[in-house]
Amino acid sequence: MKTLEIPPGIAPAVILVEPQLAENIGMTARAMANFGLSELRLVNPKNGWPKKGVREAASGATHVLDAATIYASVPEAIADLNCVLATTARERGQMKRVLAPDEAMAQVVARTGQRVGVMFGRERVGLSNDEVSLADAIVTFPVSPDFPSLNLAQSVLLVAYEWRRASGRATIPFSGEMLSPPATREALISLFGSLEAALDGAGFYPPEKREIIARNMRDMLHRMAMTEQDVRTVRGALRALTRAR
Amino acid sequence: MKTLEIPPGIAPAVILVEPQLAENIGMTARAMANFGLSELRLVNPKNGWPKKGVREAASGATHVLDAATIYASVPEAIADLNCVLATTARERGQMKRVLAPDEAMAQVVARTGQRVGVMFGRERVGLSNDEVSLADAIVTFPVSPDFPSLNLAQSVLLVAYEWRRASGRATIPFSGEMLSPPATREALISLFGSLEAALDGAGFYPPEKREIIARNMRDMLHRMAMTEQDVRTVRGALRALTRAR
Repeated sequence: MKTLEIPPGIAPAVILVEPQLAENIGMTARAMANFGLSELRLVNPKNGWPKKGVREAASGATHVLDAATIYASVPEAIADLNCVLATTARERGQMKRVLAPDEAMAQVVARTGQRVGVMFGRERVGLSNDEVSLADAIVTFPVSPDFPSLNLAQSVLLVAYEWRRASGRATIPFSGEMLSPPATREALISLFGSLEAALDGAGFYPPEKREIIARNMRDMLHRMAMTEQDVRTVRGALRALTRAR
Repeated sequence: MKTLEIPPGIAPAVILVEPQLAENIGMTARAMANFGLSELRLVNPKNGWPKKGVREAASGATHVLDAATIYASVPEAIADLNCVLATTARERGQMKRVLAPDEAMAQVVARTGQRVGVMFGRERVGLSNDEVSLADAIVTFPVSPDFPSLNLAQSVLLVAYEWRRASGRATIPFSGEMLSPPATREALISLFGSLEAALDGAGFYPPEKREIIARNMRDMLHRMAMTEQDVRTVRGALRALTRAR
């Protein structure tokens, strides 16, 4: 396997407690891989492991599944960690810090050299209060009160996304860099001249409004932030229209 | 149906172009509802509409599916909008602004009173270059170069999450507010006294190290940021231990 962008031991481990659906585990692996997480721990996956269909749902993120480790209990799954966060959708009356995913991941990233894990509960009932009590802090999501129930892999995605952002790695893969430099003002002013002359020739302007319309069109053209190539294209189009007439 | 937290027309419309899998459409509806989006537009869903299994995948977000509108083409689906964003995973060589989801949603929120839509392409091949050319700007995600392929509903989730954040509605549903006020310093100092007396009585301290160990334990107890209730609990536990001895 090729070297991972982010070697194991840097990003937080994702701990799924008694997950049931192969699809959710597969989608979790995919969501982790999307943002560079690779360490998946499963506590007592329902109906055994590996599960039928899990690789299909991972859609290629099989390196995460292949490296997944299985534990019989939460204490075993978190034993080697220095900090554990528990995701929950509802208030537990536990006197523990409650963090949004962005705040939580900022704190995780600040723990340089420490191993952190984020626990996610069962599809229907989440984590037990006892399991939550083993965590340093709670993570919850800023969901709509109308429909607060996040899918398991969706919550993992948000944590993974925020970890990537907090760790300073969230650069987008390409930018809208222009393939041609911005047009020089000389080229642009010359285009204005050609356009206005063509429109004069075509009888477009009511004489009393010529100046204001011409200025409005210059404003429109400025908003396009034209490149050199754009000016050439528009010049060519204008020439073709003038010739046709 | 009860009134929505965010009435239609405020959050961006989600436009899925030729989506194929019922599960992705259902999960999209759920992801939208999680963050308060409700307007789903489908362009030519593959194999017709409604799809078998879509309601199950929406896991209760049926109000989004029931209100979904179907279009034969992208121009029809975006006709009434004032601004359209296209999500793409790869560079298209189009000279268009490229935004991360947080930047994009900040710009969407700034367009008060305007209707905005975000287009998402087909599961395998995304949007065509022609479809992208109908958008005002491109949105792309800060994914790992190792595994950049986001699931359709997962990309919708990230856009919905960032819209909610940008719109100032991303408050978490509960906080870690303490159920008991922080202990007074008098209660805490009295606890230090009881603990140190009990440990003196138990012969815990090597005499030459008593002061430094006592100070270290006070530091540990301070880090707990104890509430009044916590102090009572620890006092009770200490009393029980002393009595047992």
